[in-house]
Amino acid sequence: MTTRRDFIKMAGLTSAAMMVNPVDAFSNSIEKEKPEKENKWLDGSRLVVSVSMQFETGGQPENAESPFPQNMQKGYVDLPAETWYQYGYKEGIPRMLDNWDKHGIKVTSHMVGSAVLQNPQLAKEIVQRGHEAAAHGMNWSSQYAMSYEEEKTFIKAGADAVKSITGFTPVGYNANWLRRGQNTIKILQELGFTYHIDDLSRDEPFIIQANKKDFVVVPYTIRCNDIVLIEGKNFSSDQFFNQVKAEFDQLYAESEFKRRQMSISFHDRIGGTPQMVKTTSDLLDYMKKHTGVTFKRKDEIAKMTLQDKSSIRE
Amino acid sequence: MTTRRDFIKMAGLTSAAMMVNPVDAFSNSIEKEKPEKENKWLDGSRLVVSVSMQFETGGQPENAESPFPQNMQKGYVDLPAETWYQYGYKEGIPRMLDNWDKHGIKVTSHMVGSAVLQNPQLAKEIVQRGHEAAAHGMNWSSQYAMSYEEEKTFIKAGADAVKSITGFTPVGYNANWLRRGQNTIKILQELGFTYHIDDLSRDEPFIIQANKKDFVVVPYTIRCNDIVLIEGKNFSSDQFFNQVKAEFDQLYAESEFKRRQMSISFHDRIGGTPQMVKTTSDLLDYMKKHTGVTFKRKDEIAKMTLQDKSSIRE
Amino acid sequence: MTTRRDFIKMAGLTSAAMMVNPVDAFSNSIEKEKPEKENKWLDGSRLVVSVSMQFETGGQPENAESPFPQNMQKGYVDLPAETWYQYGYKEGIPRMLDNWDKHGIKVTSHMVGSAVLQNPQLAKEIVQRGHEAAAHGMNWSSQYAMSYEEEKTFIKAGADAVKSITGFTPVGYNANWLRRGQNTIKILQELGFTYHIDDLSRDEPFIIQANKKDFVVVPYTIRCNDIVLIEGKNFSSDQFFNQVKAEFDQLYAESEFKRRQMSISFHDRIGGTPQMVKTTSDLLDYMKKHTGVTFKRKDEIAKMTLQDKSSIRE
Amino acid sequence: MTTRRDFIKMAGLTSAAMMVNPVDAFSNSIEKEKPEKENKWLDGSRLVVSVSMQFETGGQPENAESPFPQNMQKGYVDLPAETWYQYGYKEGIPRMLDNWDKHGIKVTSHMVGSAVLQNPQLAKEIVQRGHEAAAHGMNWSSQYAMSYEEEKTFIKAGADAVKSITGFTPVGYNANWLRRGQNTIKILQELGFTYHIDDLSRDEPFIIQANKKDFVVVPYTIRCNDIVLIEGKNFSSDQFFNQVKAEFDQLYAESEFKRRQMSISFHDRIGGTPQMVKTTSDLLDYMKKHTGVTFKRKDEIAKMTLQDKSSIRE
Repeated sequence: MTTRRDFIKMAGLTSAAMMVNPVDAFSNSIEKEKPEKENKWLDGSRLVVSVSMQFETGGQPENAESPFPQNMQKGYVDLPAETWYQYGYKEGIPRMLDNWDKHGIKVTSHMVGSAVLQNPQLAKEIVQRGHEAAAHGMNWSSQYAMSYEEEKTFIKAGADAVKSITGFTPVGYNANWLRRGQNTIKILQELGFTYHIDDLSRDEPFIIQANKKDFVVVPYTIRCNDIVLIEGKNFSSDQFFNQVKAEFDQLYAESEFKRRQMSISFHDRIGGTPQMVKTTSDLLDYMKKHTGVTFKRKDEIAKMTLQDKSSIRE
Repeated sequence: MTTRRDFIKMAGLTSAAMMVNPVDAFSNSIEKEKPEKENKWLDGSRLVVSVSMQFETGGQPENAESPFPQNMQKGYVDLPAETWYQYGYKEGIPRMLDNWDKHGIKVTSHMVGSAVLQNPQLAKEIVQRGHEAAAHGMNWSSQYAMSYEEEKTFIKAGADAVKSITGFTPVGYNANWLRRGQNTIKILQELGFTYHIDDLSRDEPFIIQANKKDFVVVPYTIRCNDIVLIEGKNFSSDQFFNQVKAEFDQLYAESEFKRRQMSISFHDRIGGTPQMVKTTSDLLDYMKKHTGVTFKRKDEIAKMTLQDKSSIRE
Repeated sequence: MTTRRDFIKMAGLTSAAMMVNPVDAFSNSIEKEKPEKENKWLDGSRLVVSVSMQFETGGQPENAESPFPQNMQKGYVDLPAETWYQYGYKEGIPRMLDNWDKHGIKVTSHMVGSAVLQNPQLAKEIVQRGHEAAAHGMNWSSQYAMSYEEEKTFIKAGADAVKSITGFTPVGYNANWLRRGQNTIKILQELGFTYHIDDLSRDEPFIIQANKKDFVVVPYTIRCNDIVLIEGKNFSSDQFFNQVKAEFDQLYAESEFKRRQMSISFHDRIGGTPQMVKTTSDLLDYMKKHTGVTFKRKDEIAKMTLQDKSSIRE
Repeated sequence: MTTRRDFIKMAGLTSAAMMVNPVDAFSNSIEKEKPEKENKWLDGSRLVVSVSMQFETGGQPENAESPFPQNMQKGYVDLPAETWYQYGYKEGIPRMLDNWDKHGIKVTSHMVGSAVLQNPQLAKEIVQRGHEAAAHGMNWSSQYAMSYEEEKTFIKAGADAVKSITGFTPVGYNANWLRRGQNTIKILQELGFTYHIDDLSRDEPFIIQANKKDFVVVPYTIRCNDIVLIEGKNFSSDQFFNQVKAEFDQLYAESEFKRRQMSISFHDRIGGTPQMVKTTSDLLDYMKKHTGVTFKRKDEIAKMTLQDKSSIRE
């Protein structure tokens, strides 16, 4: 299988032949391609899988969206919905933490400031168990409409909460519903962040310029994302397994010739249910059977991307 | 696999080692953990599965929500939707009763007062066949917005209807759509109830204080719930099977070290269809193959929780 | 497995024993039950499966509901949606007819009058190939809000169209979206119909009184219905297969002791697609492997129900 | 299995026999049918599969529909949604191109003019790799409500953009959401197009009259269409596999006696994800195992249809 960029290089030469029999034309070109180094990960990984575990519950606004019908009379609290959120810190995060340990992987946890302040011991535990604490705003507000000053204060407050509770300084950022504003990346760079994830445009990390400095985009996913698939699309856990497995199979095949990253995302009250942790554990068992697959925190991916001269730059 | 609470105890000692190799650190700790008794059920069960069979049809309001499009002109009755509800008592509950007997299990039936009065013989039969009659309100009204007095009258009327028809005194309660109000638990305790189920926060029962007395929360489910999955999420019956099976597999694995309860819920006109009873029967066959799994009524679970000194208290 | 009615008879005697061990109590009772004749079909069938093939396209109103987004500016015709409906008579019905012949079964086709007039040759062919022509209204109007006279004219016009084109006199009726009005059954009886299908309350036919005469209800389905599952619930064809198979498995098991009918429903532009006909053919192959399963037109079922002294009467 | 048209021819003769035993009657007739030539494809193909790869991203309007909630305040750009669209040209089309080469098939790419101008190199590459460039309008506007002159200008501008960038003269057309207007086919014929695809009425191509000249309809699909199934119906990629496989199985069986075409459709940002390309590759592997299956561009199908005297004419 050839890649598009290689195709463009040789298109002039082979296009005539290709019209006759493109498949042969390409199978030849594959030979030349295999040795190419620039398409590999710096540390020799074949495929890098990055798992997110969003820590949000406890910080949600009153009567936040939930699986319960949004039809309550004004002025009343949706009490069962609150217990649905509580599940995230009482059962969800602890169960996922045990699962990451069982599989020996480290993940990135984007933490909402208000959730961290609500459950400081759990936030601390996530870091103590070896995972990355990244920032996810001070609360669940949308930030795309904030002024530059408001937004800077909002992002800094969330990051400070994470650092003060966990002792970990966040270098990565995720905006509520991925909805950054026009100033967000500039602000992140000013505050010392090195990467953000609110971009779905590629299956590998890349470098952009923020305030004339390198800033990394570690792409996120809505295709292998529990809130989008389980709550948004009403998938059953077996559909989640099948779709994520298909995603892995294709990226693993491509990674023979090309740098590929796979992103999977979980949220405390959704990805932490027994049915989803069982499904995730089965997926991890499957992925780990493949040689060259590594599981990395997004801070590691961002660092490796900055060091790699072959990283894509936009 | 370690548990979070154990982790916290030992975190001070092992955190350094853990940073080097958390997996080893934990696999060691597992040894120490296995003997722990406090995480087991008082009667020696490994995993307790509790099935609900909601008895509601016959008591629904005119033109209640149904699978039919909600687009009728005002002033007319949705006659086919009524026959969809009638199915619940003509076929659904009788079929489920035969299935519980076939598998030799007892369930908890939350009964709406108006449904019991509409089909007294069937309500009585449920109890005669060994199942628990619990209360589910006098009718389908939302109670979260009722005054203290209104709500107390509403709950008592429903419980009295159940008792007068079935001879069984309800000790458990389920509010319409789980939506209790701020006074509900206080009222339940005053009326002699010992537990409620309108809480999704844990995978095991726990004790709270109501009027300064112990009151049990036996958690319910929306993840293994026919009305949420089949009517709400449009699952097919095979998706229901796969998702509930995954839930069981994970909880069974965890129950080696921790007290775990699994909840499954069915409603007369939904869980009582041939396709769903076949699916449920297949699930019960699968669960019964696992040693240490017991099926209990929620009144038994509440009683055992009150007697158990190791129960979680909030 | 015992049945509910048997249980009630013996409840007095066995209830004490049952409380000790209900399962044994029932397994004994099963012996006594097996010989019971009244639970069988008059012709000795074990399970009767009835298939509907609704003939509606060509008769739909302009811009009728379709899979296309309902967002067109007023005053324009949704041309691709029209071709989606045309598929029903150009490919759907012909394909289903070939499938019924391949499997050697006869079905009931509820025909909308305006559709029959639009495609008379196809309507005629359905009858020539041995299937039942039943009435489905003169057009797609809702009839629940019509006056007695309007409704009688509407039903008669549709039935007359079917008879004049196909030569078959309809004796069965299906209202648009099953939504009959308070006068519908009275009118049907006056017009010489012997049964209707707009009822979901049982898994076997039963007899009601209309104008003090026997009138049969041959229950329809929304659980094994292509428009509800494929267009309404967005099932894939494999979900349709799995759910209908589970329905069959349970009804077949019950039919050892009890009269059971299974209903499956298809619509020209939906059930007639290649993916659905393949799925239906696989289901028929599966069902036909079971002894005692017969496939009957609803007019046959209604006739047998009237002749059977053990039919349920309401 | 007989076909409907054959049935009509012989109905007079065999209908009596058929009533006795239609299955035998038909199995006999099958013998006579096999030699029939008019039901075959001119080039001897048994089943023709046509794949579409829609090239639209880069040309979408600001804040175009996406998987993100449509709840943004006015005046702001949905930045993550933009990256979801960028995925189409950065990863989606290149990945699909590699997959078509891997399987040695050629597809039809309906290209939006504004998308081609945004990513000219990629549009050119599609043609260089042997695929058909077809027109899909100048931008994403609905054309059904345009005046004759507006629409002609709109269609011509899109086709000119495709030709000037790719060097390929489009002869096929697809309207936004298939929604052509009353003048569209007349305009297409005037502009030199030979076929359009905005019709779902048949499983084989057919000929209509436009300005008294032959014009081909190469039917499109919403049953095997990624935007309808994945984004519209929320299918998981395994549901897409199962449903398209069932579609193929039935059409392949029918193609023994009848000319059949199967259409499958993909869109850059949806069909080009790893999970969907893996699924598509598995489907192509499956189809290619069947003798007589060919994969053709729609321009080839239109040409063959015009040359074939046995083509259906409407």
